[in-house]
Formats: sequence, structure tokens, C-alpha cells
Amino acid sequence: FAGPAFGESQVKPAPNGITVPDGYQDWRLISSSYREDNKTLRVILGNDKAIEAALAGQTNPWPDGAIIGKLVWKEDRHPQWPSAIIPGELSHIEFMIKDQEKYADTVNWGFARWVGMELTPYGESADFAKECVNCHIPVKDKDYVFSKISPLPR
Amino acid sequence: FAGPAFGESQVKPAPNGITVPDGYQDWRLISSSYREDNKTLRVILGNDKAIEAALAGQTNPWPDGAIIGKLVWKEDRHPQWPSAIIPGELSHIEFMIKDQEKYADTVNWGFARWVGMELTPYGESADFAKECVNCHIPVKDKDYVFSKISPLPR
Ligand code: HEC
Ligand code: HEC
Repeated sequence: FAGPAFGESQVKPAPNGITVPDGYQDWRLISSSYREDNKTLRVILGNDKAIEAALAGQTNPWPDGAIIGKLVWKEDRHPQWPSAIIPGELSHIEFMIKDQEKYADTVNWGFARWVGMELTPYGESADFAKECVNCHIPVKDKDYVFSKISPLPR
Repeated sequence: FAGPAFGESQVKPAPNGITVPDGYQDWRLISSSYREDNKTLRVILGNDKAIEAALAGQTNPWPDGAIIGKLVWKEDRHPQWPSAIIPGELSHIEFMIKDQEKYADTVNWGFARWVGMELTPYGESADFAKECVNCHIPVKDKDYVFSKISPLPR
């Protein structure tokens, strides 16, 4: 089968049924981070609903429909500037989709992750989301979200 | 003078006359980096023209009208996750504006930087751009641009 060019339509949903949010590559910036422990560079983006909520400070709770995406790359070094750590290979992309009704079982957020450029869904069963929730418990009082919108004059 | 709320209209142009590009906060992602040497976290964004050129691989040279923005924050640590280096105070924002005619004197790019949340223009005279150009010479054969668009499935 000589299929069409690789596209998101061929990507499998996460074990909890969530599909890759459309057009996340074009979302606006929330924040970025560098994880020293696992040597990854991250960018956190939001869909319009999420950005508007973040700018209005209405994030406790975040509104239904808000989606936060995190893009994670293994670190690389800029060949012409080695003290600059830059994105290398894509590690994974992951999302938190706010819906109080749909995701009531997982603290009102739908969690999903896809690994590598081939976007292999992460997790064996829908239970994978327990791992996500557990790790986000330290920020329970921030509606389970670690990142704040980065300061910029507006 | 009880002026209006702080806005970009009150921000002074750079010494070479360049003003802060409109709406850069909403531009799409090109890349991000962490500079180990000066402990800053950076996000590189592009206007539509820049993103389209980057996705099409038409960046040698970049087309007139492309603008690349870099947002730089001093590093902070996530209080609930100290191995995560996150954006702290805004250090500066800076831009490269491609225009072969207008900026022929500075390798066809208009360079400009504003410092801190108050966006103080960087540089004493238009000569400040020499410093920018000099530092970007290692990537002369990449049309003076260090960053590539980060890998993401599209
Ligand atoms: C080992 C701990 C840990 C696990 C497991 C974990 N996260 Fe996170 N997550 C974090 C931390 C810390 C941040 C913020 C800082 C960073 O990204 O470097 C974060 C940030 C995020 C963000 C950006 C919004 C925010 O909270 O800042 C999303 C989206 C996200 N995680 C999704 C997931 C998904 C989906 C899973 C499970 C498949 C998951 N996470 C599992 C620790 C974890
Ligand atoms: C000390 C060296 C140095 C100086 C001086 C310098 N730059 Fe850069 N610049 C870099 C490096 C290295 C990168 C890419 C990696 C990073 O940002 O961490 C970069 C990236 C950029 C980017 C993003 C596009 C790209 O090339 O990746 C812009 C925009 C930019 N610089 C503008 C400026 C402006 C405006 C000035 C002068 C006011 C300036 N730079 C001066 C080293 C420098």
C-alpha cells in the first residue's frame, strides 16, 4: 500500500480515545522549560481558549475547551555555539484537554501523549493517565498545571 | 501625566529606527534554547512569512518581510519541580527583520533589541547592530540565522 504522505490522520488515538489535537503546531506560546535531569527542552503551547484564559488569569480552574500542549525534544548543542542547548530529536508531544464532564475521572483533564516523530500513542490501557495525574498532584491547587504564561509586555 | 496603561506605543524605537514588531507575542514557534553560559531560556518565534519560509525550507536567503523574534528570560526553577528550569524575569526581546534594500548595510537584516519589561531600546547609536552582525557571522552561510525550525510531524 503506497499510502499518502505521513499525516496525523494515520496516527492512532491514545488508549483513552483522545486524538492528536488539530493544528497544535500553530498554537501560541505559554512557556518553555529545560529539564536538567533528563536533558530535554520543552515548549508549552495553548489553543486560543487556553491562551485567553491564561492572559485573563482565569486558570483556577481552566475553562472547558482549553488545551495545553507540551512539545519535548532531546537536547542537542548548537554546532556554531556549543553553550546553546537546542532542540534535537523529538521525544514526545503531550496534551491536557480540559473538560469537566468528559474527563471527570482524571481530575477534569484528558491526558494524552504520543512518542517520537511517528507519534506512537503512549500507554497500554486508559490507565496510563493515572501516571500523568500522579505526577501533576504537586500542583493540584493550580488545577494540576505546572506552567504559567511567561512574562511579556502586552 | 496620568497616561494610559503601559503599551507598545510608548516604547521608543531602537537607535536604527526599528520599532517593536506588532503582535510578536502571538507568532508561531520556530525553536527554543537554553544558554548554559548565561543561564537564560529563549524562545524563537516567527511571523507568518518567516514560518512559511522555514516550513518550505526557503531560508537561504530568507524572504524579504520575514521577521524572527527571540524572547529571552533569566532562568528560574519550578518551585514544585526544581530540576525544571523555567522562564523567570524577562531579560530582553530581539528581532531580525529581513529587507534586502532597507537593511543592506547590516547583511540585509534589521537588528533590534529591547531590554526588560519596560522595553528599553538597546544601543547608543545605530552602530549597535555591528555587535549583532559580528556575533552572527559564524552562521553567515545560513543567512546569519542560528535557529532551525524544530522537528515536529506536520
Ligand atoms: C515525572 C513527572 C511527570 C509525569 C509522569 C507527567 N508529567 Fe506532565 N509535567 C510535569 C512537569 C514537572 C511539568 C512542567 C515542567 C516541564 O514541563 O518541564 C509538566 C507539564 C505538562 C504539560 C504542560 C502543562 C503544565 O502542567 O505545565 C502537559 C500538557 C503535560 N505535562 C502532560 C502530561 C501527560 C499527558 C502525562 C502522562 C502521559 C504527563 N504529563 C506525565 C511532570 C510530569
Ligand atoms: C554573543 C553573541 C551574540 C550577539 C552579540 C548577538 N547574538 Fe543573536 N544569537 C546568538 C546565538 C548563539 C543565537 C542562537 C542560539 C540562542 O539564541 O541561544 C542567536 C539568535 C538570535 C535570533 C534568533 C534567530 C537566530 O539567529 O537563531 C535573533 C532574532 C537574534 N539573535 C537577534 C540579535 C540581535 C538583535 C542582536 C544585537 C542587538 C544579537 N542577536 C546579538 C548570538 C548572538
